[in-house]
Amino acid sequence: MSRIDLNCDMGEGFGAYRLGRDAELLDYVSSANIACGFHAGDPATMRTTVQLCVRKGVAIGAHPGLPDLNGFGRREMAITPNEAYELTLYQLGALQAFVHAEGGRLQHVKPHGALYHMAAKRHELAAAIAAATASVSAELTLYGPPGSELLRAGAAAGLRTASEAFADRTYRRDGVLTPRGEAGALIESAADAAAQLVRLVREGKVRSLDGEDLPLHADTICLHGDGAHAVEFARDIRALLASSGIAVLPVGS
Amino acid sequence: MSRIDLNCDMGEGFGAYRLGRDAELLDYVSSANIACGFHAGDPATMRTTVQLCVRKGVAIGAHPGLPDLNGFGRREMAITPNEAYELTLYQLGALQAFVHAEGGRLQHVKPHGALYHMAAKRHELAAAIAAATASVSAELTLYGPPGSELLRAGAAAGLRTASEAFADRTYRRDGVLTPRGEAGALIESAADAAAQLVRLVREGKVRSLDGEDLPLHADTICLHGDGAHAVEFARDIRALLASSGIAVLPVGS
Amino acid sequence: MSRIDLNCDMGEGFGAYRLGRDAELLDYVSSANIACGFHAGDPATMRTTVQLCVRKGVAIGAHPGLPDLNGFGRREMAITPNEAYELTLYQLGALQAFVHAEGGRLQHVKPHGALYHMAAKRHELAAAIAAATASVSAELTLYGPPGSELLRAGAAAGLRTASEAFADRTYRRDGVLTPRGEAGALIESAADAAAQLVRLVREGKVRSLDGEDLPLHADTICLHGDGAHAVEFARDIRALLASSGIAVLPVGS
Amino acid sequence: MSRIDLNCDMGEGFGAYRLGRDAELLDYVSSANIACGFHAGDPATMRTTVQLCVRKGVAIGAHPGLPDLNGFGRREMAITPNEAYELTLYQLGALQAFVHAEGGRLQHVKPHGALYHMAAKRHELAAAIAAATASVSAELTLYGPPGSELLRAGAAAGLRTASEAFADRTYRRDGVLTPRGEAGALIESAADAAAQLVRLVREGKVRSLDGEDLPLHADTICLHGDGAHAVEFARDIRALLASSGIAVLPVGS
Repeated sequence: MSRIDLNCDMGEGFGAYRLGRDAELLDYVSSANIACGFHAGDPATMRTTVQLCVRKGVAIGAHPGLPDLNGFGRREMAITPNEAYELTLYQLGALQAFVHAEGGRLQHVKPHGALYHMAAKRHELAAAIAAATASVSAELTLYGPPGSELLRAGAAAGLRTASEAFADRTYRRDGVLTPRGEAGALIESAADAAAQLVRLVREGKVRSLDGEDLPLHADTICLHGDGAHAVEFARDIRALLASSGIAVLPVGS
Repeated sequence: MSRIDLNCDMGEGFGAYRLGRDAELLDYVSSANIACGFHAGDPATMRTTVQLCVRKGVAIGAHPGLPDLNGFGRREMAITPNEAYELTLYQLGALQAFVHAEGGRLQHVKPHGALYHMAAKRHELAAAIAAATASVSAELTLYGPPGSELLRAGAAAGLRTASEAFADRTYRRDGVLTPRGEAGALIESAADAAAQLVRLVREGKVRSLDGEDLPLHADTICLHGDGAHAVEFARDIRALLASSGIAVLPVGS
Repeated sequence: MSRIDLNCDMGEGFGAYRLGRDAELLDYVSSANIACGFHAGDPATMRTTVQLCVRKGVAIGAHPGLPDLNGFGRREMAITPNEAYELTLYQLGALQAFVHAEGGRLQHVKPHGALYHMAAKRHELAAAIAAATASVSAELTLYGPPGSELLRAGAAAGLRTASEAFADRTYRRDGVLTPRGEAGALIESAADAAAQLVRLVREGKVRSLDGEDLPLHADTICLHGDGAHAVEFARDIRALLASSGIAVLPVGS
Repeated sequence: MSRIDLNCDMGEGFGAYRLGRDAELLDYVSSANIACGFHAGDPATMRTTVQLCVRKGVAIGAHPGLPDLNGFGRREMAITPNEAYELTLYQLGALQAFVHAEGGRLQHVKPHGALYHMAAKRHELAAAIAAATASVSAELTLYGPPGSELLRAGAAAGLRTASEAFADRTYRRDGVLTPRGEAGALIESAADAAAQLVRLVREGKVRSLDGEDLPLHADTICLHGDGAHAVEFARDIRALLASSGIAVLPVGS
């Protein structure tokens, strides 16, 4: 039977601030990327989110970000590889303590926002993040874009890796995501998104915006948790995958 | 042979800011309390400090504090027991990741500043800190003032505890430290401090400021790292203990 | 004609986080208390909120808080009067720059959360906040609870003061707000709240929870912006005041 | 009589952390760039530093930085021009409140670290900083590197500008500072530095590292406050300028 992992960012509130409908989304995804207190998240939110994941049987990942709460970790910062290693290790350790306390197990690491994008392109940063991940546990899976430095560095560090595609995004002919600002970048309907996913899972192909087929390998699919219809979108995707005979399972299972 | 643990706060710099002469002090203490990024410390400083401890064979402890970098964790904050549990667990996990990555072992937990003082007096906060500590590892030792709620809570949580006295402070007749502002609160000479320590270790007694002997049990002695003569003071204390036949050893050994 | 000021906390988002329905609430209040970046708010949010107030003709106040974003400024901290002065002055200056840049005028200062409560009771903190306010401008009005140290300190510093009551809260026989946890603390219906306000404005009296009339002087009424029905509540209160012939006007007009 | 302004970064401590020997350096410089709480500095430090400047008659400037205390504002961040405007305005306002409270006057604005370097090269960021400065006061002077976008944007915004050279740095043939890592980048002796400054002031020329004369206009000279010999260096520079008949005066005088 075909299978895929559905992942979603979680635990991105902070103090009095709430973000996303985590509890509902956890009914449809197989893996959660939990913010670790730098770009979002705080100790209380991490604890609650880990508890929810454990209760619902969703695999837990760390979602470390840049130390930029005000920019939500989306602004690139000129950090050194050492700094990337240190801030990743710090955040992984913090999250792992909650996971351990709640009787869970850390499955994966997915850098957030600008850290993800920087590490996808720059070898030294990717290697630093992979090293921090490996020093926490050799059993962890590192998520990254297909063909990225992140996946290469993860493999070089002896880690399992998961190639990530996006449920609601289209691809350009060169295999890169259509930039958000451009026409057609977003897939609005769950049916269209599911159709793209089914083909991705079954055939390892995606049709680019200008109509050409591209090979694309994906182990995990990112669902966005922050749109107005995020929960309904996730629910529909999950149902459409099921009706196509595709199992939704965490990468580590 | 008699023995005692000498501990000192370490890794309290932040970014461009340096504080204390950690590398030198580590030659004289047996246990280090490493700041975890809330009241002081940051990922880079934690890494460096853990490396120094591992290289010098000094036992490593976590020194979690209140989320108040500007106040250096010295200002009491009205946190709930849940918040105490969560911020302690977060900080312990973060430090443990560095300790694990450097091949070390976490020995103990000593709350910092206002968190230490609040938890010494308030049962619920002490229990929360002990629970966070125990959920990281049942092998950890919890440091606290003699007779404090911290020690009681640590024991109730099944942890080893270490009763802490201060090298450069005098005691009042009721067994409480003479408040810093008061005359005679500080012991200026290393010889006087060592004499008090030797008696403490050998006889379990300390002479109060008004000349009366008090029973006082101490497993560990805190040396301050931030005075102008902190290194010389530590060196002299260590030498005087040695010449009195008292071994300086970590509590966990 | 009778008059009253309606105030509401505003600009309490931070980065990606939104809080409250500021733009809608600004149609019903006469004064806005704008967060200044410590307990909530950031430079972008302050700018946007000031622009909204200027456009809608709502009087602008500074809402300085404790340096505790994670606790939303609601946790008491043991700050000194000097620290209270300094953190208030810093925040007032930051907000005033935006007000000045947008062609507005700063009308008042209302401390937030724990800072408000601490300063209401403790003379030295109140005096520090009043001094910071006066050093920004002698024209500012200081908001505080009836009979509080804040109002006393404001008057002693030569400032105008505004005694603040709450639209949706009941009072105990001793004139103190019924604590939030207790039965009957909150007034749920806008009609009941408006009735209490009309009497407060016209007669200077409020009926306590146990049915006794108390004298209570209020210059301004706080509406909460964070409930599910906050906008509707504000709209109804405003309409009911209008139909009772009570004008809603800023304190400084 | 020839004249020049000597400026130095000040008030870069934070909470328990001290940095630099501000009080001593203030005896030798004519202008101080005071950190405003983002890359360094806090309300208490700002107050103390402003008081020192007022007492010693040193002209006061704001030294706004990126929101990156851990990186000391030295790491470039991908901020938008709007964010640059907002964070500059916030910091200027905060500092101005202290300046106003102490009876001083704000003379200038000099962005810090990565913000300075980014704004020197990128027109939109420079224009945003100039706009924030102008909206605080049209009387302010904007500091920037010779020929930079900062100076251009300042002039376009109707501000006075001051072209800044460095006392202890050499220049390449193209007029750019020799990068710090390269041989000969730093001028170690105060006599050599003073000789370069005297020529700069009298002739508007500097000799590049490879021996060629370059035209270079400087209105202000930056002294570094953070080296081991910073105070002695400043004292000697000041004395050597005096003995060469060059007055040290703030730009705004």
